Amino acid sequence: MKKVKPTIIRKIHRADTDAVRTLGELGVATVHEAQSRTGLMRPYMRPIYPTARVAGTAITVSCQPGDNLMIHAALELCQPGDVLVVTTTSESTDGMFGELLAVSARARGVAGLVIDAGVRDVADLTAMNFPVWAKAISAQGTVKATPGSVNVPVVCAGAIVRPGDVMVGDVDGVVVVARQAAGEIARRGTDRVAKEQKTRERLRNGELGLDFYGFRAKLAELGVQYVDEE
Amino acid sequence: MKKVKPTIIRKIHRADTDAVRTLGELGVATVHEAQSRTGLMRPYMRPIYPTARVAGTAITVSCQPGDNLMIHAALELCQPGDVLVVTTTSESTDGMFGELLAVSARARGVAGLVIDAGVRDVADLTAMNFPVWAKAISAQGTVKATPGSVNVPVVCAGAIVRPGDVMVGDVDGVVVVARQAAGEIARRGTDRVAKEQKTRERLRNGELGLDFYGFRAKLAELGVQYVDEE
Amino acid sequence: MKKVKPTIIRKIHRADTDAVRTLGELGVATVHEAQSRTGLMRPYMRPIYPTARVAGTAITVSCQPGDNLMIHAALELCQPGDVLVVTTTSESTDGMFGELLAVSARARGVAGLVIDAGVRDVADLTAMNFPVWAKAISAQGTVKATPGSVNVPVVCAGAIVRPGDVMVGDVDGVVVVARQAAGEIARRGTDRVAKEQKTRERLRNGELGLDFYGFRAKLAELGVQYVDEE
Amino acid sequence: MKKVKPTIIRKIHRADTDAVRTLGELGVATVHEAQSRTGLMRPYMRPIYPTARVAGTAITVSCQPGDNLMIHAALELCQPGDVLVVTTTSESTDGMFGELLAVSARARGVAGLVIDAGVRDVADLTAMNFPVWAKAISAQGTVKATPGSVNVPVVCAGAIVRPGDVMVGDVDGVVVVARQAAGEIARRGTDRVAKEQKTRERLRNGELGLDFYGFRAKLAELGVQYVDEE
Amino acid sequence: MKKVKPTIIRKIHRADTDAVRTLGELGVATVHEAQSRTGLMRPYMRPIYPTARVAGTAITVSCQPGDNLMIHAALELCQPGDVLVVTTTSESTDGMFGELLAVSARARGVAGLVIDAGVRDVADLTAMNFPVWAKAISAQGTVKATPGSVNVPVVCAGAIVRPGDVMVGDVDGVVVVARQAAGEIARRGTDRVAKEQKTRERLRNGELGLDFYGFRAKLAELGVQYVDEE
Amino acid sequence: MKKVKPTIIRKIHRADTDAVRTLGELGVATVHEAQSRTGLMRPYMRPIYPTARVAGTAITVSCQPGDNLMIHAALELCQPGDVLVVTTTSESTDGMFGELLAVSARARGVAGLVIDAGVRDVADLTAMNFPVWAKAISAQGTVKATPGSVNVPVVCAGAIVRPGDVMVGDVDGVVVVARQAAGEIARRGTDRVAKEQKTRERLRNGELGLDFYGFRAKLAELGVQYVDEE
Repeated sequence: MKKVKPTIIRKIHRADTDAVRTLGELGVATVHEAQSRTGLMRPYMRPIYPTARVAGTAITVSCQPGDNLMIHAALELCQPGDVLVVTTTSESTDGMFGELLAVSARARGVAGLVIDAGVRDVADLTAMNFPVWAKAISAQGTVKATPGSVNVPVVCAGAIVRPGDVMVGDVDGVVVVARQAAGEIARRGTDRVAKEQKTRERLRNGELGLDFYGFRAKLAELGVQYVDEE
Repeated sequence: MKKVKPTIIRKIHRADTDAVRTLGELGVATVHEAQSRTGLMRPYMRPIYPTARVAGTAITVSCQPGDNLMIHAALELCQPGDVLVVTTTSESTDGMFGELLAVSARARGVAGLVIDAGVRDVADLTAMNFPVWAKAISAQGTVKATPGSVNVPVVCAGAIVRPGDVMVGDVDGVVVVARQAAGEIARRGTDRVAKEQKTRERLRNGELGLDFYGFRAKLAELGVQYVDEE
Repeated sequence: MKKVKPTIIRKIHRADTDAVRTLGELGVATVHEAQSRTGLMRPYMRPIYPTARVAGTAITVSCQPGDNLMIHAALELCQPGDVLVVTTTSESTDGMFGELLAVSARARGVAGLVIDAGVRDVADLTAMNFPVWAKAISAQGTVKATPGSVNVPVVCAGAIVRPGDVMVGDVDGVVVVARQAAGEIARRGTDRVAKEQKTRERLRNGELGLDFYGFRAKLAELGVQYVDEE
Repeated sequence: MKKVKPTIIRKIHRADTDAVRTLGELGVATVHEAQSRTGLMRPYMRPIYPTARVAGTAITVSCQPGDNLMIHAALELCQPGDVLVVTTTSESTDGMFGELLAVSARARGVAGLVIDAGVRDVADLTAMNFPVWAKAISAQGTVKATPGSVNVPVVCAGAIVRPGDVMVGDVDGVVVVARQAAGEIARRGTDRVAKEQKTRERLRNGELGLDFYGFRAKLAELGVQYVDEE
Repeated sequence: MKKVKPTIIRKIHRADTDAVRTLGELGVATVHEAQSRTGLMRPYMRPIYPTARVAGTAITVSCQPGDNLMIHAALELCQPGDVLVVTTTSESTDGMFGELLAVSARARGVAGLVIDAGVRDVADLTAMNFPVWAKAISAQGTVKATPGSVNVPVVCAGAIVRPGDVMVGDVDGVVVVARQAAGEIARRGTDRVAKEQKTRERLRNGELGLDFYGFRAKLAELGVQYVDEE
Repeated sequence: MKKVKPTIIRKIHRADTDAVRTLGELGVATVHEAQSRTGLMRPYMRPIYPTARVAGTAITVSCQPGDNLMIHAALELCQPGDVLVVTTTSESTDGMFGELLAVSARARGVAGLVIDAGVRDVADLTAMNFPVWAKAISAQGTVKATPGSVNVPVVCAGAIVRPGDVMVGDVDGVVVVARQAAGEIARRGTDRVAKEQKTRERLRNGELGLDFYGFRAKLAELGVQYVDEE
């Protein structure tokens, strides 16, 4: 084994386009449930504007904190529909991505950015409708001095992301779906939505989940007692 | 004394409806001042959309973290105008409440949710105009496995809430008014608003609080010195 | 040397009005870069509404936490275009500033508020279009009991602010420009904007920063290796 | 109802001395379990030295942040074996208590301090073996300018404390036992310790909780599958 | 693909014993450097006593927050020298592990615990010299109600841990070494220590790293200017 | 005005040696009070071992986060009794300083380190009795790629530090004394200690601060009411 060198991997396998589109329509909460409550990033990852939505293929980037050199390197590898997933080797809130990078990213068809650090030029990014999920909004500029890697597995906001995985983001946060599982999770999520529609109708009509989910029995089994008065 | 059992209290006393409505019109900052700066929740409790407003009667829920079983149990006890107040026995940001529960809550007339944990389906809740104050937005799903209590006194975001207390929420946060004090606080708040209207006019005309509040004398008494130049 | 007394300095030197206006047009990220990435406040300072923008001259205020007496004292010294910069002697999130103070501030021409603490009446401040950057939104009321100082140098959210410095705020945060440097930084920022316009065009046409910034050579020099397949 | 006035309550009921002593011997984790996992303060409350231990009766103090006037007032009401429980009306880390107050407290027999704020002179307090649980260590000095209350119910680090309740603190944190429940909880805790001693022996001999707690069946019921190889 | 089921993997491959011992002697900082500054957990992971040290093979556990059922299941699979690595599916500080579990773990030869949650009975664990790295110390008890997995890859405090990887912990934190790389990293670390010994001697004799690392030239190249007087 | 260049200032004025020694003997809390409660760093700055104490002259260092190049440059300028004060241009917890740098620093007589970032090799530093106050303990290694400055004014943990200022550190935190004020503050602190000795005796004899500080009158003036029973 030789010393680990910073590496840029040029070619990755991407998830199925139809699956990606379906996952994006389902949204974060449904996808997270459909894959047995896994893959969710920490809730500190917030969209920079509330209507931001994205679904696409992960191009992963591992940077030195305060240094965005590798984002420049990653852009070359992006294809239309990709989502940049940027992490730093230790915690940072610096504004590693701004309007110029967004213009460049959009020119290559990049669908959005998920960054476990900061972002800036937020007014411009919002005007461009370029969706970003970040840990912080910060104008703090960055250097281009230290190597990193592109398209290696990374941990981003507590979730493992491998290049080619599907990133789904909306106002509820960001969830990662393993590339190979995308089709199956899309199917399960679609089924879930169909089933929820029936539940929704019953709830809207005043039925209680307590009754039709069988939670009354559960409460009794768990020894919860009902008392009439305060 | 026997072992404390998880308990659901069915009947509670509610605050006076007129007082609740007035408190809601006064808003959080005024109500907090009217009751001598007490009852305010910690500022990490934020509305999920900036125009969210609520005033209603607290139905309290104490849950295991990551488990929303008791919210289902609580819904049965809600009456129109109630506000669900959900706490966990230790800190959690999981998304214990989402769109289906909101549909069910609305069907029973629930006016809003105050939750010292996370919430999800925020786009749907916003579209429904269902007001929520939460510690986090998180898609993290929850189980239904551990008992808890409904309508017992709880500590929510640093404030004591008893079932039947008045919850007032707006963009400034959430304040709790003890049920028995609701009428009195509503009166005091109304008086305060009237008095502030006069103050506002004077300030708008360029008078200084420094002068009409008597703060010049206070500054002198405290030994603050005026110096002309930097 | 005598005991340090709480002090209010009446007269300060203000930055050049044209420079202030230009800096406000450039915005936080550009100004921060133009002054070699200095002067930025910590990213926890957020505007209370996303379109808030300000540029003006700092009137600095140092308060006891939970006490806004010195803000009242500072208002008297404000001139049109000034920005109140409020700090506390230890960390606090209390709502030291609200709608009545904003009415008073506006009557004196104050352009906005930068406060390393909390703010309240956020709905009113937003309706007034009174821009505020704060650490927290909190209805917590404050007393008027302890002396402090006005127009002394302060540390606000990690940045040194001297009375008369230029404060620039937008959705990216807040940056401080030293009074004497305002003109020079305005020029440099203007140059930067002009240069960026050319870069933007090239990026929009699909050129890569990787190429025209010379980062390919940098990556090679740093030993980053390209690998074809995952 | 008149305006809530800051109030000092002179006489409180104290918990049974024997129960207090037993609860102190049991320690925080056992007492917390014995009362059905309630009453624990948030884990940010840490002892200033690892061997700190206390059990005593709560004298509660509610202060303005940055102001320790009411601690002085509370000391007069302390009896030997009491524990000062200090909270602030909003979050603060200021060092409200130091060596001089500890000397005064010890002269009155105070057994320790639980403070949802900061403490200073930690080297002296440690040398005195005066146990303190605090949110922060901070030399930040405080004023004596704003009224507060003594011996009213308070929320301290997420737990409700009423004057006369039993405070138990050790390296695991701080737990509150309601005054009336002290004897019963002491008995239950003692029973628990006896039972745990048998469990401990079995575990030490290599038996698995998995077996004797019946968790194998639980795992099967929950659908957990065993797989041989990675 | 079927629904992801909670799974316990019985047999894992363990790292070479000699490599593990060497890595433990090298300590966290050296190992982290030897593997090109990768594998370090977030600095919030702290030992419960300053002299805690461990090196061993990871048995990974993924639990529901507030539920330690799967730790019981994991103990059965532990062999002498293993280190339990416990994570929760969302953030939690609950005290999932205490003295009884430590007795059971020690009976099976477990060398220590790394837990991205809380721990309790810290006085007992310290007396037993059972090393633990945790996010929090908390007496908060946990339930045994929800399934999880054992010996699956997990993210713990920002680092990926696979069963069989080497865990190294000391007062500087915790670092993970991939099982297959253990021998190579042990060698590199040993070389590093030897080299550092020479550097240490030169530094002790008053030579400057500035000189023998070639940083003077670096500073000049980077445009750092020397000025004589303030 | 030319572009701000990274700068190393070779010669600084140092505070009076006797004053520095006295300030160190007085300790952080007393010095902070003696200078009217100013100059204290945020309480997140903690010593790496509880008996750490230091008093010395500040050599200030401003670094890029994750980069310790400028610490190497600063060491050359250190004289016996100096204290390194290290800041980063944005928030970081990386371990910028370890045992090798401490050996080098000690060889030059450096008395200690105050770093608004992380430190590593804490066991070695403790064994060397090299006192450090830091925001974090982290093994995270750093690069040497980006310029910074030495002996310029910095903001460290919320306090302004100018080269030559006196740094005083102990278990209560870190306080900064302006160079020119060192003698005066040392005198005031010495007076304070003398006065406190008398107060201490009275308190030890059971007198109450409530009485001899005149707080009874204050409480009455503030409208605090005494009530007999709960």
